Amino acid sequence: MKMLINGPERVVADALRGMAAAHPGLRVDVPHRLVLRGDAPVAGKVALVSGGGSGHEPLHTGCVGPGMLDAACAGQVFTSPVPDQLARAAAAVHGGAGVLLVVKNYTGDVLNFEMAAELVEESGVEVAQVLVADDVAVADGATTAGRRGVGGTLFVHRIAGAAAAAGAPLAEVAAIGRRVAAASRSFGAALHGPTTPAKGSPTFDLPPGELELGIGIHGEPGRERRPMLSAAELADVTVEALLADRPALTDPVLCLTNGMGGTPLLELYGFHAEVVRALGERGVTPARSLVGNYVTSLDMAGCSVSLCQLDEGLLRLWDTPVCTPALRWGR
Amino acid sequence: MKMLINGPERVVADALRGMAAAHPGLRVDVPHRLVLRGDAPVAGKVALVSGGGSGHEPLHTGCVGPGMLDAACAGQVFTSPVPDQLARAAAAVHGGAGVLLVVKNYTGDVLNFEMAAELVEESGVEVAQVLVADDVAVADGATTAGRRGVGGTLFVHRIAGAAAAAGAPLAEVAAIGRRVAAASRSFGAALHGPTTPAKGSPTFDLPPGELELGIGIHGEPGRERRPMLSAAELADVTVEALLADRPALTDPVLCLTNGMGGTPLLELYGFHAEVVRALGERGVTPARSLVGNYVTSLDMAGCSVSLCQLDEGLLRLWDTPVCTPALRWGR
Repeated sequence: MKMLINGPERVVADALRGMAAAHPGLRVDVPHRLVLRGDAPVAGKVALVSGGGSGHEPLHTGCVGPGMLDAACAGQVFTSPVPDQLARAAAAVHGGAGVLLVVKNYTGDVLNFEMAAELVEESGVEVAQVLVADDVAVADGATTAGRRGVGGTLFVHRIAGAAAAAGAPLAEVAAIGRRVAAASRSFGAALHGPTTPAKGSPTFDLPPGELELGIGIHGEPGRERRPMLSAAELADVTVEALLADRPALTDPVLCLTNGMGGTPLLELYGFHAEVVRALGERGVTPARSLVGNYVTSLDMAGCSVSLCQLDEGLLRLWDTPVCTPALRWGR
Repeated sequence: MKMLINGPERVVADALRGMAAAHPGLRVDVPHRLVLRGDAPVAGKVALVSGGGSGHEPLHTGCVGPGMLDAACAGQVFTSPVPDQLARAAAAVHGGAGVLLVVKNYTGDVLNFEMAAELVEESGVEVAQVLVADDVAVADGATTAGRRGVGGTLFVHRIAGAAAAAGAPLAEVAAIGRRVAAASRSFGAALHGPTTPAKGSPTFDLPPGELELGIGIHGEPGRERRPMLSAAELADVTVEALLADRPALTDPVLCLTNGMGGTPLLELYGFHAEVVRALGERGVTPARSLVGNYVTSLDMAGCSVSLCQLDEGLLRLWDTPVCTPALRWGR
C-alpha cells in the first residue's frame, strides 16, 4: 500500500511537525509527542489531558484548544502513550485546579494512564480519571477487558472540557465526564481494513462483497461478517444495536455519524440521512449532529454512529464556544 | 469496490438529505439539488452561487453559510449542475444586490454557468461570474480549455463571500473574486484513483509503487507517472511546480494542504510539515494554513497544495467570521 510518508518510523513525528506548522494556537513538543494549548497552563482551570494511539486523528491531538483538551499525548500508531509522557503533559498544563485524565478502555491505555495518575499525584497535583467504554459491539476483546472506548471519547473531551472552561472544580468536571461516558453508545462497521505504516498492508482482509459489523477503531474483530448491506440496512442494524443497549432515549440526544477515514463525505452524509431516518422511526430525533471523520482508523473504509443521552445542562455545555482543529464554533 | 450507499442513482439525493438532517442552518431542496443559506435571501447583500459535480465534498454544498456561499448546486457525481438549477438557486437567494456565480474551469461547467447567467440576467437580476482556473499541472485537458479549477475555488468562495458579507457591491465582490482566482495556484498528486458509484471500480489504475503527478480532481491525467516519492520529495516537486508558475510570492500567503478523500489526516499533517519546510527553503512562510479534506475526489488517495498570494485586505477578509460545514470560525 502506497503512503504519503517519509518512512514508518517518522510518521508520528512528522504529523506533529505539521500540526505545529498549521496551528499557531497550539504548542507542540515533537520529541515528547505532546500537543498543548498555546496558552497553557490556564490559572485556576481544571486541566484536561487525554491521548492514545496515533492513527485516530483528529481524535486526541486535534481536540486540544479552548473548550476541550489542554493536552493530548500521541502514542505510536495504534499504541498507547506512556506514563512519563502523560505525566509530563499534566505537569505542563496544570493550572492549580487539578488534572482530569480521559482514557479509552484498552488494557494498555488503562495501565499507562493509571501509572501516570500515580506520578501526577506524587508530584502533589490533584488528579482524576474518566474511562470511556462506549462501544456496544463486543463485551471483551484481545486488548480490552470490557467495552472499547471509541467515538464517545469526542463527547467526553468536549463536554468535560466545556465544564472546565466554565470554571467547574475537578470533582464536578470528572463527574460530568463520567456522566457523558456512561450516556454514550457507539457501533461501527468496516468495508475495508486499515493499513498501518509499519505493516504496509491492511491489518485484516475483508472479502469483496462483505462487511464487518461491530468493528473496533484498530481493526479489532467485530460481531460478525455479513454480505454487503445498503446504507439503509446498515443504519437499521447500527441503530438497533445502539438502542438495544440503551433504550428509552429522550430529548436531547447527540449523534455523531463518523467516518473511519477512507469513506468519502458524500457517502457519510447519505448514511447519516439513513441513521436519522432509522432513529426517527424509533422515536429519537438528534438535537445535534456531527457528520465527518472525527474518530478514525487511518484509511479504514467504514463508519460508526455514536449517540449520547444529554440533558439540558449537558447540551448547553456542548454548545459553548470551542476552538480546536477538530471542533470549532462560537469563536 | 464496496460503498456505503443505497444505489448509484441515489447517492447525491441521499447525501443532500443527510446535509439537511445535519445542518439546521441550511435549507436543502433535494429534488432540485440545491443547498441554500437558511436565512436567504439576505436583503441588500450580493448573493454568491456556486456548484459543481458531486464527489468533491465539502467543496460546493459544504461552503454554504454566512461568510461564504448563499447557494450551491450539486451536479451528479463529477458532472456539472445544469443551467435551470443554477438559475433557480440564484432566484432563491438574490437579495436585491445581484448575484455572483463562481465557476470552475471545465467545459461543461463554463457552458452551463454561462447559460445560467443569461437566464438570471433575463429575469432582471444583475449577474457576474468568476472563473477559477488554478491548476498549474496541465495547460488543457479532455474536459477543459485552459487550466482546471481545483483547490483555489475554496479561497474564492471564502474571500469573495467575506466581501459580500461586508456589504461590498457586485462589481467589487466580483473583482475581489477574480483577484483571488488569479492569485491562486494548485498542484495535486494521486496514489490511488477515485471510484465513482456508477462505475464501481477506480476510474484509472495506478500500479503499486507509482504515483501520478499533476492529477485532476476527477482523476484526469496529470503530468507524469513516477516511482513512488516520499512525502518530502513530493512536497519539493509540488512546491517547485507552484513557484515555477507563480514566483516571487510575498507575505501574506495562504496555504491549503488538501486531502483527496482517501488519505488519512495523519499522513496529510506529515505532508504539510514537508510543504511548509519546502516553502520555507524558498523564502515563503504561509500566513494561514488549512490542512484537511476540503476539495476531494471521492475516495482518491492523494493530496494537493493550493497557494494564494494575498494582501493585507484579502487576509482581513479571510479572517472574518464564517459559518459553514467546511469552514467555521469567529461565530
